[in-house]
Amino acid sequence: MRDVYIIGVGMTKFGELWGKSLRQIFVEAALSAIDDAGVDHIESMYVGAMTTGLFVGQEHIGALMADYLGSAPVPAVRVESACCSGGMALRMGFFEVASGNSNIVLVGGVEKMTDGADVTAALATAADQEYEVYQGVTFPGLYALIARAHIARFGTTRKQLAAVSVKNHHNGSLNPNAQFQNEVTLDQVINATLVADPLTILDSSPVSDGAACAILVSEEVMKKAKRPAVKIIGSGAATDYLALHQRDDITVLNAVKRSAERAYKMAGIGPEKIDFAEVHDCFSIAELCIVEELGFVEKGKGGPFIEAGNTALDGKIPVNSSGGLKAKGHPVGATGIAQVFEVVEQLRGNADKRQLKDVHIGLTQNMGGSGASSVVHIFKLAE
Amino acid sequence: MRDVYIIGVGMTKFGELWGKSLRQIFVEAALSAIDDAGVDHIESMYVGAMTTGLFVGQEHIGALMADYLGSAPVPAVRVESACCSGGMALRMGFFEVASGNSNIVLVGGVEKMTDGADVTAALATAADQEYEVYQGVTFPGLYALIARAHIARFGTTRKQLAAVSVKNHHNGSLNPNAQFQNEVTLDQVINATLVADPLTILDSSPVSDGAACAILVSEEVMKKAKRPAVKIIGSGAATDYLALHQRDDITVLNAVKRSAERAYKMAGIGPEKIDFAEVHDCFSIAELCIVEELGFVEKGKGGPFIEAGNTALDGKIPVNSSGGLKAKGHPVGATGIAQVFEVVEQLRGNADKRQLKDVHIGLTQNMGGSGASSVVHIFKLAE
Repeated sequence: MRDVYIIGVGMTKFGELWGKSLRQIFVEAALSAIDDAGVDHIESMYVGAMTTGLFVGQEHIGALMADYLGSAPVPAVRVESACCSGGMALRMGFFEVASGNSNIVLVGGVEKMTDGADVTAALATAADQEYEVYQGVTFPGLYALIARAHIARFGTTRKQLAAVSVKNHHNGSLNPNAQFQNEVTLDQVINATLVADPLTILDSSPVSDGAACAILVSEEVMKKAKRPAVKIIGSGAATDYLALHQRDDITVLNAVKRSAERAYKMAGIGPEKIDFAEVHDCFSIAELCIVEELGFVEKGKGGPFIEAGNTALDGKIPVNSSGGLKAKGHPVGATGIAQVFEVVEQLRGNADKRQLKDVHIGLTQNMGGSGASSVVHIFKLAE
Repeated sequence: MRDVYIIGVGMTKFGELWGKSLRQIFVEAALSAIDDAGVDHIESMYVGAMTTGLFVGQEHIGALMADYLGSAPVPAVRVESACCSGGMALRMGFFEVASGNSNIVLVGGVEKMTDGADVTAALATAADQEYEVYQGVTFPGLYALIARAHIARFGTTRKQLAAVSVKNHHNGSLNPNAQFQNEVTLDQVINATLVADPLTILDSSPVSDGAACAILVSEEVMKKAKRPAVKIIGSGAATDYLALHQRDDITVLNAVKRSAERAYKMAGIGPEKIDFAEVHDCFSIAELCIVEELGFVEKGKGGPFIEAGNTALDGKIPVNSSGGLKAKGHPVGATGIAQVFEVVEQLRGNADKRQLKDVHIGLTQNMGGSGASSVVHIFKLAE
């Protein structure tokens, strides 16, 4: 496999972007990434989007975005893996450059969720339609089941869950692209409107519009570009049973664990070498389980680990310095690439008020459904 | 790039499969392909599907199919490019094997369109929602515009268009997997219910359920398999303006032309070396334009070329020996892989009553929207 580098990233502000259409949002992020990379053309495009058919009545997103970006006739395809559509788009672009077929590939993600669709029902199409959704359950309920099992098995506390949101809102307050740039307290999270016991509205990521893009290139193009580049040193993906009831233990996110193992193996390193990570905190319990599955802490100890500040900006392993899905926002198809945006900016030292100190290797973990899909990438500043 | 081979294919019958769900249809085709390949595991999966969210309320199709196939935790992702989702899934699997990341990859496509959704509206999400669909136009209207322009510019006749359907129904009558296994006459096509002038219902591909799968492997696995293998010698994709009104000349399918040029270049051959082809005859006019764009005949001469029998089973270059989308059926996400099924079966000499004589190199052309996406692959029997 050829080496693959990122030489440019771009994203829109995340939030309720009433004045901009789906295509405008994507093109804004794509032009920003192209400008950052300093390239004068691209050879191929991958667009992550979860359910634009249900959100805005538009499929065929790959060709549409190539068209509106002015890039047609370049090949363009849309990649869907529920909320990890963005991370999977990155993986497709990685394979194309690694294979030698192209030297400059744009990967991106986009979603416009605030335009009036029944968002909860549209998102529920990522769960098992026949065995879960038809019975009335949607994602807050599924993650609440995981939270209750984690509490019962490991003694995780309500406060420990809330600590995830408090940290991520703090980080979001330092990120100008974040949907929410305000701090919240433990009391506010715990006493907010209950969505699905024990999860409140402040344990939950919001409904958002936004897009993010990155430019992947071969080593040859990277060297000519003469600008700071980030190397993709690991890529791993995995799946699990779609429906919760089929899994042996719902506190274990097996796809996260397996995708991380594969990415670590490709990178030739273990979790102890990761300096910081962006992970899929669609609900507070998700981040708590994920830090366990990624091997940052022993299974079941995620609660005390987070509560003690280990994942804060100045902690042992900062997690979601961007504000995460909770505060930065979660336009589902865009999230995986927005994670890459944060890791690249941190590694290049461009993260301003939330800049982490002395970071060399970063990880992104993007997840679909209640954990049935997961994709992990590991990045290192190129020498 | 590493060489990539197909060592197994499978498909369901296409048609109105009332007794089977989306996941059952896919798993049936996948197991059939796995059985044909004789492999005991797969390492990765790509599933082409156009708009399962709108058709059956289910997204996250990659993980769902890995789960129901019993293949989780293998990585699985869904690929969407409107009606060329299947062809694009093949291309993604091709890149993954070519890159060296995996040695055995399942690529497939599936759609269940007959379960009650508003099919015409769901399909219209592949056109430009803001500039075309919102004005009331859907695909029969868009292709009728292309047909009228072709008639006006090149003198193409109504009878020449109908000849496409007559040929494809004849071929379908020899294919046990085809949705329609009956012959039709020129008069029947021309005098059938008008859908969008000049196109009748018999110029139009049907609404279908179905799935098709193929197993892609590296050279090493192919050699160990000790069974007839087909090598993918060319892959090309391209895009065009999504909306017809933006194109310089709507009789030209630029994405088809460009995708073919790229596939020919990779294969190191021109159209004169192609022995037979499966192409995207969603409407009769589409096949007529495509044989021109692929270089089988000069631009504008597609009508007389087809009318003279050049694309019949015993013609100069047989096109759609399977019956094509018109007679075999068009479960949109599955079509691109069903084309591969036909080419592999023909090259291996397994096509029974419709077996072509002395064929060595076959081509598939799969298209999205009114031609805004196209993907072309070229295949050769491995020595």
